Amino acid sequence: MRIPFAELEGGIFEALVRLGLAPERAKLSARLTAETDRDGVRTHGIARLPRFADMIANGSIFPANEPEVVGSFGAMERWTGHRGPGNVAAYAAMGRAMELAKEFGLGAVALADSTHWQRGGSYGWQAADAGFAAMCWTNTMPNLPPWGATSPALGNNPLILAIPNGREPIVLDIAMSQFSYGTLTKYRERGQQLPVPGGYDAEGKLTTDPGAIEETYRALPIGYWKGSGLSFALDVLGAMLSGGLATHQISVDPARESGVSQIFMAVDPLSLGTIEEMRAMVAGAIGSVHAATPVDAGDPPRYPGEGTLRVREENLRLGVLVDESQWGKVFELGR
Amino acid sequence: MRIPFAELEGGIFEALVRLGLAPERAKLSARLTAETDRDGVRTHGIARLPRFADMIANGSIFPANEPEVVGSFGAMERWTGHRGPGNVAAYAAMGRAMELAKEFGLGAVALADSTHWQRGGSYGWQAADAGFAAMCWTNTMPNLPPWGATSPALGNNPLILAIPNGREPIVLDIAMSQFSYGTLTKYRERGQQLPVPGGYDAEGKLTTDPGAIEETYRALPIGYWKGSGLSFALDVLGAMLSGGLATHQISVDPARESGVSQIFMAVDPLSLGTIEEMRAMVAGAIGSVHAATPVDAGDPPRYPGEGTLRVREENLRLGVLVDESQWGKVFELGR
Repeated sequence: MRIPFAELEGGIFEALVRLGLAPERAKLSARLTAETDRDGVRTHGIARLPRFADMIANGSIFPANEPEVVGSFGAMERWTGHRGPGNVAAYAAMGRAMELAKEFGLGAVALADSTHWQRGGSYGWQAADAGFAAMCWTNTMPNLPPWGATSPALGNNPLILAIPNGREPIVLDIAMSQFSYGTLTKYRERGQQLPVPGGYDAEGKLTTDPGAIEETYRALPIGYWKGSGLSFALDVLGAMLSGGLATHQISVDPARESGVSQIFMAVDPLSLGTIEEMRAMVAGAIGSVHAATPVDAGDPPRYPGEGTLRVREENLRLGVLVDESQWGKVFELGR
Repeated sequence: MRIPFAELEGGIFEALVRLGLAPERAKLSARLTAETDRDGVRTHGIARLPRFADMIANGSIFPANEPEVVGSFGAMERWTGHRGPGNVAAYAAMGRAMELAKEFGLGAVALADSTHWQRGGSYGWQAADAGFAAMCWTNTMPNLPPWGATSPALGNNPLILAIPNGREPIVLDIAMSQFSYGTLTKYRERGQQLPVPGGYDAEGKLTTDPGAIEETYRALPIGYWKGSGLSFALDVLGAMLSGGLATHQISVDPARESGVSQIFMAVDPLSLGTIEEMRAMVAGAIGSVHAATPVDAGDPPRYPGEGTLRVREENLRLGVLVDESQWGKVFELGR
């Protein structure tokens, strides 16, 4: 079903207030969640709200807790999230990184002891829409085997890169696993094979069978040993700068995945260059990707964020596409 | 054959002086090159020197040119390399990023118009050995098809992350293609299949046959659409901050791949935390990876940089392993 954006945002807002968020914070969190569905990232919008409510109930998220600055040096700050709502804390941290970038050219906030930030891309769009380049990442519970192992010891640690470009910024939002378990389930339920290998089967062979990977829990890091190393390095760097938990210290129970470490870095490109030179260069780079010979005629390759704009426009025009039962659950939360 | 490190370094130094580098700069460049072979990255050590000499001869590299600061704002500087030797410029840029990090907690140098930096990992080790965390990357000529395309429009854009940890830092050095063309050739010449799919064959199917990929030029980005997006974002961000060329503006002739854009970012972790808390966290993270169930019993998974230390120790103890004909060529350079 499709519902108007304002109605979606309003329904989420009321649910979050019932769950204990102060109105101002519920308003921000509702907007970020509604924008996630608006942008077509339906795994990370209202679909995650029941888990959010469960984690408040089991003491993994404290809805009234706000992030606090615990250290500051030049262009860098260390914050602690006190396990408050993760998207509200992340939005504040990226906002502060942008202020630091305005002052120092670049700036960073390292946030410890936070909770699931929902869609990481939100903070990339936040920065790029305000004219900043940004990089941010979070660690997660152990849910991915390191290269050469069969048991999870790495997180899928989403990484976001954002580059301002007027109304059409470049926003990359990638987890370090080739597919999430949510995606594997979706393929299996539809009886479909994955488009590329996504993990290992019980015989230790690469497979495109989603069910086989769900059974072994041997999901694949992007680029095999390369994504495995990148996931590890992001985890350790995030925990080091924030002074927070590394992946191996986070609960392996998804319903208690709390206390994560996150990095928010912003750069003000206009501190060194002009908007004209940048616009021209970005237009050239996008043009070059669009001009590459497509695998399927008539379907040119896209740059990161390009597809989002199309989905967003459609969802704003026709109403945001949501799952009826997920939307129904929003009204039950906190009652 | 194996030769003592000092002899390797000395032979390279003399060749670089013959090629027109001033002694002080030849000394640094020779050390970086010798260390690359010492660390077992044989594709990027003396093996690249004949190409370096050719590029001086054809006017793509100017051996006497030094990098210059062209802009500065807070913790960020913009440099131009004037197409001097890439490793000398990169080393200076990372050094300056570390000075900025000492002052501001983090710092960055964006370097335009440079040349091939040889082994990117060199600048990660440089930072981590000095106690800094670092991230750096370079763009390259178009050598990788974007996801959804069959013709190259992206670079393989190596990305380096480094994390200090005493004598055993974490250093990740990954290109955005699953395998380099050099590696594909090596496998083909040995008559071996790739360990994982590395690109597409003439029928558009994923293949582990190195020769088939050399024919189609359809190498695979790490993580398919994910590495494709990451490569694009790194390219555009590097060109934007440095004011230099993006991949689509760089010559597609490998012998004239010059004018690349590079980013060097350093963070001083001790500006916010203590060395004791960091050491304990890193030890725990490494321990957790080592404790994961190995695919092959007795062969535990490794963290990025761990293998390098083993190779380095062996090469320092027994002499650095080099290819006899490549070593012979060093003595012919510049004559």
